[in-house]
Amino acid sequence: MLSKKEIKDIQSLSHKKFRDELKLFIAEGPKIVGELLELIPQKIERIYALKEWIESNSSLPEVANVVEVDSIGLRRLSQLQTPNQVIAVIKKLPSKKPDASSFTLYLDTIQDPGNFGTIVRTADWFGIKNIVCTPGCADVYSPKVVQSTMASIARVNVYYDENEEWLKEQTVPVLAATLHGRPLHDRSKMKEGILIIGNESKGVRKEILQYATEQITIPKRGEAESLNAAVAAGIILSHLMM
Amino acid sequence: MLSKKEIKDIQSLSHKKFRDELKLFIAEGPKIVGELLELIPQKIERIYALKEWIESNSSLPEVANVVEVDSIGLRRLSQLQTPNQVIAVIKKLPSKKPDASSFTLYLDTIQDPGNFGTIVRTADWFGIKNIVCTPGCADVYSPKVVQSTMASIARVNVYYDENEEWLKEQTVPVLAATLHGRPLHDRSKMKEGILIIGNESKGVRKEILQYATEQITIPKRGEAESLNAAVAAGIILSHLMM
Repeated sequence: MLSKKEIKDIQSLSHKKFRDELKLFIAEGPKIVGELLELIPQKIERIYALKEWIESNSSLPEVANVVEVDSIGLRRLSQLQTPNQVIAVIKKLPSKKPDASSFTLYLDTIQDPGNFGTIVRTADWFGIKNIVCTPGCADVYSPKVVQSTMASIARVNVYYDENEEWLKEQTVPVLAATLHGRPLHDRSKMKEGILIIGNESKGVRKEILQYATEQITIPKRGEAESLNAAVAAGIILSHLMM
Repeated sequence: MLSKKEIKDIQSLSHKKFRDELKLFIAEGPKIVGELLELIPQKIERIYALKEWIESNSSLPEVANVVEVDSIGLRRLSQLQTPNQVIAVIKKLPSKKPDASSFTLYLDTIQDPGNFGTIVRTADWFGIKNIVCTPGCADVYSPKVVQSTMASIARVNVYYDENEEWLKEQTVPVLAATLHGRPLHDRSKMKEGILIIGNESKGVRKEILQYATEQITIPKRGEAESLNAAVAAGIILSHLMM
């Protein structure tokens, strides 16, 4: 039986304030929880799961503290409209200030949690180890971001850059995706450098754009006004890195 | 003052059954409604808007039947958590069976409405005029799809293919995006043909894959298990078409 305090504590993790205070976040569903258990078992603080999930995961690492709940209990804890078997409470991962010796993605004010998480996952596909974000971006530990990363959250280091202090220091090429740059397909591949992706309705802000050494644009043949930020990031990374 | 019946009728448009019956759908917010008013004024059946929206859109086409509502009225009609000034009720657009003389996108069981709408928008960016879908895909007129297309819904023809009858008839090259195909970057550009994108957790189903003449894969350098379907579509279209 779950105590009222336990339910309240876990529900509070939908708010950044409490995630920061408790240094915890949550992930839901057998797929992502299963992957995180393999990748970062030592970070899993506690698991709340239905009997069926526990039975089909009998070889769980000993580190995990598993609590069986019924479907009513799971619904109380869940952030999802359709709770899905298991919820893990996980210790936040260390956020390291990266060096730019490999390719780094820089996100300016990507507020939509689904887009943000999808970008983390896309970066992971292309082997990018570091994402640097302006403070106006979504919180990487918000439940919707975590779900959209599909466990890539455990493989990609996300660092929040206050007052562009990190960006200012860099000496590698800095590309910004804008609507009026050089056509992407004319740009040669690159192994080190920074790619800036901006908010899709406002683009890259001036205060960030001033650090760009080049602007690039995905050529348009049709009529859509813009591309989704995660789609744009994927297209540019695929061209530059592969 | 809105009548109860009017409120109920508009709310019912969140369900496919009623959209099909009434041949209507809704779009919300100044940006998408503004664009649709320019693109398909004759299809706008009615607009419900706050006074401020009406005042800043005083040169509305005469076709539009505009009803002023207050913020409580707007909230009653809206599908959004944060209603945004204006809701348009729009006649469904004709769905034409396309020929494959230009590039066509074929979607297999893309159920997530945000992904589906983002793919329609991405196709529009690359100048694709036709998307053919299996019946297991999201309904293009569901409110979340409409919002994610960002008005591209008015420029891209979406056709639902029952029992693969359309796909069976085609004689152009048919590429399927899978995890074990030929590397995308080895494939030359193409002007006509079909690209099949499958459900992201299950991929392209066997019954659809049998019609593919080639399989292609976006090379992976990192660890993510898969890419988001809209991101994958964008990367492949950018490579094949530009």
